[in-house]
Formats: sequence, C-alpha cells, structure tokens
Amino acid sequence: MINVAVLGYGTVGSGVVEIINTNNALISKRIGDVIKVKYVLDLREFEGDPVQEVLVHDYNIIKDDPEVDIVVETMGGLHPAYEFVKDALLAGKNVCTSNKALVADFGPELLQIAKDKKVNFLFEASVGGGIPIIRPLKTSLAPDEIEEISGILNGTTNYILTKMTDEGGEFAEALKDAQDKGYAERNPEADIEGYDAARKIAILVSLAYGKTVSFEDVYTEGITNISDRDIVYAKALKKKIKIFGTGKKVGDKVSVRVWPVLIGKEHPLYNVDGVYNAILVRGNMVDDVMFYGQGAGKLPTASAVVSDVIEAAKHLHININTVWSDEKLELVPAKQMKAQYFIRLNKKKDVAEEKVKKLFGDVTVVDAGFEDEYAFITGEITEGTYREASKDLDSVVNKIRLD
Amino acid sequence: MINVAVLGYGTVGSGVVEIINTNNALISKRIGDVIKVKYVLDLREFEGDPVQEVLVHDYNIIKDDPEVDIVVETMGGLHPAYEFVKDALLAGKNVCTSNKALVADFGPELLQIAKDKKVNFLFEASVGGGIPIIRPLKTSLAPDEIEEISGILNGTTNYILTKMTDEGGEFAEALKDAQDKGYAERNPEADIEGYDAARKIAILVSLAYGKTVSFEDVYTEGITNISDRDIVYAKALKKKIKIFGTGKKVGDKVSVRVWPVLIGKEHPLYNVDGVYNAILVRGNMVDDVMFYGQGAGKLPTASAVVSDVIEAAKHLHININTVWSDEKLELVPAKQMKAQYFIRLNKKKDVAEEKVKKLFGDVTVVDAGFEDEYAFITGEITEGTYREASKDLDSVVNKIRLD
Repeated sequence: MINVAVLGYGTVGSGVVEIINTNNALISKRIGDVIKVKYVLDLREFEGDPVQEVLVHDYNIIKDDPEVDIVVETMGGLHPAYEFVKDALLAGKNVCTSNKALVADFGPELLQIAKDKKVNFLFEASVGGGIPIIRPLKTSLAPDEIEEISGILNGTTNYILTKMTDEGGEFAEALKDAQDKGYAERNPEADIEGYDAARKIAILVSLAYGKTVSFEDVYTEGITNISDRDIVYAKALKKKIKIFGTGKKVGDKVSVRVWPVLIGKEHPLYNVDGVYNAILVRGNMVDDVMFYGQGAGKLPTASAVVSDVIEAAKHLHININTVWSDEKLELVPAKQMKAQYFIRLNKKKDVAEEKVKKLFGDVTVVDAGFEDEYAFITGEITEGTYREASKDLDSVVNKIRLD
Repeated sequence: MINVAVLGYGTVGSGVVEIINTNNALISKRIGDVIKVKYVLDLREFEGDPVQEVLVHDYNIIKDDPEVDIVVETMGGLHPAYEFVKDALLAGKNVCTSNKALVADFGPELLQIAKDKKVNFLFEASVGGGIPIIRPLKTSLAPDEIEEISGILNGTTNYILTKMTDEGGEFAEALKDAQDKGYAERNPEADIEGYDAARKIAILVSLAYGKTVSFEDVYTEGITNISDRDIVYAKALKKKIKIFGTGKKVGDKVSVRVWPVLIGKEHPLYNVDGVYNAILVRGNMVDDVMFYGQGAGKLPTASAVVSDVIEAAKHLHININTVWSDEKLELVPAKQMKAQYFIRLNKKKDVAEEKVKKLFGDVTVVDAGFEDEYAFITGEITEGTYREASKDLDSVVNKIRLD
C-alpha cells in the first residue's frame, strides 16, 4: 500500500484526489502496489464531499505518520509550503509539488535534502501544466547538451495574443475577455508582465544546465504594450506575435529572457494558439524536440502531479539524481542579448529614413498601410545598440524582436 | 564506472558511440558515475576509426564480462539480435535497443526476463527516433487512461506526402525523389505500405494498454494509391493528407490501424511536415499532449538510445516496472472501424448522385474542378458499410478517411 497525503484541497489538489480515485486500478497496476489518499490537509471543511473522511487540519498528523510515503504539495505560495515540504523530506517522505514559486526559489536546497534522505522531490506540474517537460528534460534529453529551450509558457498571454490575432481589437479588450472567461486573474500582472513565464523558464534553464537561474535575473518584458497595429504589421509580415520564455547557449553563457517575438510559419511553435502551451528544446544531438499540451487547468495539471506520485512510488527510497546545484549560472547581460528588431517609429518615412540608416545600416521596411508611421526590421543587433539608437530616435512606438 | 557494450557499429550504433564520447562529461555528471564504451561488436573492421581499440567480433566476450553493465543493441533484424539480447538479460545486464522489430515481436518476453533478473529492457529509440515517447508514455502519462494515440510515425511517407502537397506531382515521382535523397530505401515497401508504422503503433498501443497487439493484427493501408488528384481535393477541402498510426479506445476494445487520413488546420498534427514525426496522446485526465521531433536520423535516434543508457545506469539493479503482458489486447475488427469517408467515383455527378444517396444518405459533395468525377464525404460509417457500398458502386477511384 502506498499512502499519499495531499496538502491543499484547491483546484489542483482536488484534481489529484479525483485522479487517484477515478483511475485507481490503472495507477495501482502501473506502480505495482495499491495507492490510496490517506490524508488531505486543508483549513476549510468540505461538507458533503467524501474528502471529509480523510480531511485533517493539522500538518503534524501527516508529518508524524510513518505510513505516509508521499506528500503532494498543492497549496501554492512560499509559506508554509516551504516549511511543510522541507519537514516532509526531512521525515523521509517523497514530495511532489505543482508550486513553481517554491521550486524556483528553493529547488536546489530541497533537491539536496531529498538526496540526503534517499527520497525524491519532484515537480513536473510546476512548468507547462499537463505537458511532460521536466521529466523528459531530466531523462530523455539527458544525453544532449541543450543549445536552446524556448516555450510558450503562459496560457493567459497566449490566449490574449491569439484573440488579438484572430479577432482584432486592443490588448485591454482581449485581457477583459480573458478575465471574463476565467483565463486571467483579476490582478493579471504576473501573467501579462511575463513574471509567471520568467519563473518557469528559470526552472527549465536551471535543470537544463544544472546551475541556478534566479527568476529575478531573467530579463523580462510582458505583452501590455502590444497593440492592434502590431498585429496588423505581424500579418503583413506573415508572422504571429507570441511571448516566449527562452534560454539560449551563447559561448559559455546562457541568454535567458521572456519577451514578445515575431515568428513565421516555419517555426515549430507557430501553431500553438489559445490556452495551449508548448516547449521547444534543441539538443546538440537530438536536434529539435517539441512538447505540446494544456499548460494549465485542473485535471491536466493534476495529471502531471500524479505522474510524479507514480514515479515516487516506484522509487520510494531511491533518490533519482537531479543535477541542479545552487551555484549561479552565468548569464548573458541584457544589453548584450542579440536579435533582429522590428521597430515602429511615429514619424513619416521621409523624415525618419536617413537617421534610421545611419543608426542601423540597411533595414527592411515594413508597409502595413499606416502612413503616419515608419516601420522596419534591423539586422541582428544587441539590446545595447537598440537602446542607444532608440534614445537618439526619440520616436519609437514599439519594438518586437524576431525569432 | 559504467561499462557499455554496443552491438552493431552501423548508423545508430556509431551514433551511440559518438554521443557517449562527445558528451561524456555531461552524461557522466547526469548519471553520477563515469560512463565508458568498453566494447563494440561488429563483424567488420574499421581501419583508422578509434573504435578499433574496443572492437570485438565475438559476442561471448561481452556476455561473459561481468564488468559490462549495459548492452546496447543496434544491429537490427530479429536474429541474432533476439538471442544476444536475451542472453545479456539472463546474464544480469541491462539492454537498450533501437530495434522495433525485436520489441514488437518479443517485447513482453524480454521485459519479463528483465524483471526477473532485476535489470531493464529499454527501447525509447524503437518508435519516433529522437522523439521522447516511450518513456513519457510509461511515466508522464501513467496516471491517465489513454483514449487515443495517433502519430505520424514514418518520416519517409510524411516526406512523400509533404512533397506532393507542396510541389504537386504523382506518388511515383515523389517516391523517387525520396529515394534519391536517401529518405526512402531501394525497396520502400515497409515504409510506403505502412508496415513500419504498423510495428510502431503496435508497440505504442501495447504499452498504452498493457496488453499485446501483434503488428500483423494492425489493419494497415499504405499511401501507394494517393494521387495528385487526391492532393488537389484535399486542398479544396483546406485539409492535408497524412498517414496515421492510431489506437483509439472504443468501449472495451481498441481500434488499431494505419491508414491515410484527411486532417484540417485545427488538428495538432496538421503542421508536421517533411521527415518530421509527431505523436498525439489523448488521456482521460491530461487531455491532448503532443510530442514532435526527428523520427529518424543517426544522432537523434542515437540520442534516444543514450537516454535509455542513462536511465539504465541510474537503475542498474532496479527493475522499472513496465506493464506489457503477453495477453492479447481485444481489437475492434476492421469491418467495425468507424470514420467519415471521402470517396471519389469515376462517374459524373448526374449518373452517380442518386445511388450514392441511397447507399450513404446525405453526403457533402466536394468540387475540385474535375468534371469526370463525383466526389463526396459521407457521415460516420463503418468500414463494412463502405465495403458493401463500394462493391455496389463499382466506380470508386479512391477513398480517404477523415480524422
């Protein structure tokens, strides 16, 4: 018998209980032992829900019960999630979590405790919801040096950009629609400013290179200044605007950022629309591999958590080596990051043309029918060059990098 | 020290040696121990290749060396691959193979021996080349009941269909081009008749449901009768023609087949073109998940093999439970398989219309400008119904199912 305790009976936690109960026979067969939810920890009561029978309000009951093999943390937030997870690992229990903030901030420490205690700290659901990416990165792509990892990592912003592309309209309208549909929160900052994607790419890059990227060190630009006109330009270019989280190896360093990009049809992520997420990994041997699915949602995310529960059940007292030290990964400074830039100026062509040529050399002019603007694509330049030039130009409406 | 022996220094085998040598430091770090290729078995000599130093011609040297922890089988064919693999497992060595014929024919037996001997029999590279699919199916998707698994599993046929779509021309020309480019073999039967895809979907479905599907029992239609006109019709329908290997749960049975399909833009596999492969898995909890990458090629396939080597190295004497019994999976008989059919008749509309209506009820007429034909799409019918009707019609040029 494998006994599981679930901390937090919210969206994901209740999904975990639902999956373990609904698919119990199948999951038990795959583990080779019967699995059971022994406890659910939550401060609330759930009258009429069968969960009442296993509901506890005191974490110590779980921590002190030697029969609990696996603790599932789906509370969210840093505290007391961190303390509970640490205590569980120190008590020799495996932990599976969907909590990206916890993983991004305390990953290496919790992995080390798990290693010392010969148990596992697993977090498949922390990135990409139901998409298998953490485990494939640790196992299937383990033979490869990772050259690039790029993902559409946030369903809310992808929904907003898809809506603006398909139906037109400004960012604010699309955001409101996403909020009405429950895809965006009342306070949407973490999504639309790119912070959620930054946490996720920090985790992926840390795992890919075995050293730590703090999410605060991820250069991040959100989508709040993407306008209807940007979408019209993108269409004129036969491209789409997406927001990517990316880690790219450049010499001995890694360029890690979240920013909007223009991508063309030939890009493997071009057709990833709506609330779907996808992650592209380029290895030095396997070349391009892509993973696609629902980046959020109760059951997809809970399915990812339960896949970790099954993995933990198969390795109850065997630590699966995960290389992620607390040493800092060397990053490319923002100013040295390179890209081709699509730039819009609120000046007419004849006024701007000469100065643009002086600053950027030959550029490709983009005509989307707006005569009050001058828009163009540069060659590959650094962010530093762009910033200097944009000061000098004093008329940039928006810029989006090409990928 | 983890010692590896590679059986067969062909395309994939030499790729395995290349990856273990090139990425040695990184792979050793991920395993937590130093990895080395101790032997390569091949009947040939390789003058001037450093492999000479570890080359042996007698399998017994490998089998009898207790220092060999992992045997990589990349010889292909059933014999002596089967005997070598079985002997290695019986000798307590882990085995990683890229040999789909071996896995399709002897999977359950070899998995059972591995279990008895507390070692592992792994075969990530047997399906989808560099695409991680076998391990995700066994681990990431383990919480889910699989409702459908559909894949573009053969790069040769996907290349041919993509070329016909992009450039026009008949099947024979596209096949010749694929042969000239080295994507198709001189004897292309296994690819173009769908047998290669049938072996792969047999493996995937067996793993998804834990019981055996023999590849001979997979209902299989190839792409040899796809013509330029079919492509023109597909375009008129804003669809593409692909060849899918599919397993789909229908009640208590599974419908397993390889056949050409018409798919629209909304299908996640619509943009999988050229030699790329992709596999879509629909779980009852996780919903749609898709995996995409290079389905063949030396280094991508070898990377998949080495990912198994790393997995085996982390589990040298711990069997990872894989549910695949030799009990036969109950299949839906071909005649009861259901689909919407796109059907072309070599009769004019006015001649054919009435009979078609009598046989199929209301159909959707498809006009692609060929006045000598009558083409239409039926509602969902069984293969049995189609066969009866087509006998009665006596004028079917081709039929392609919708997906």
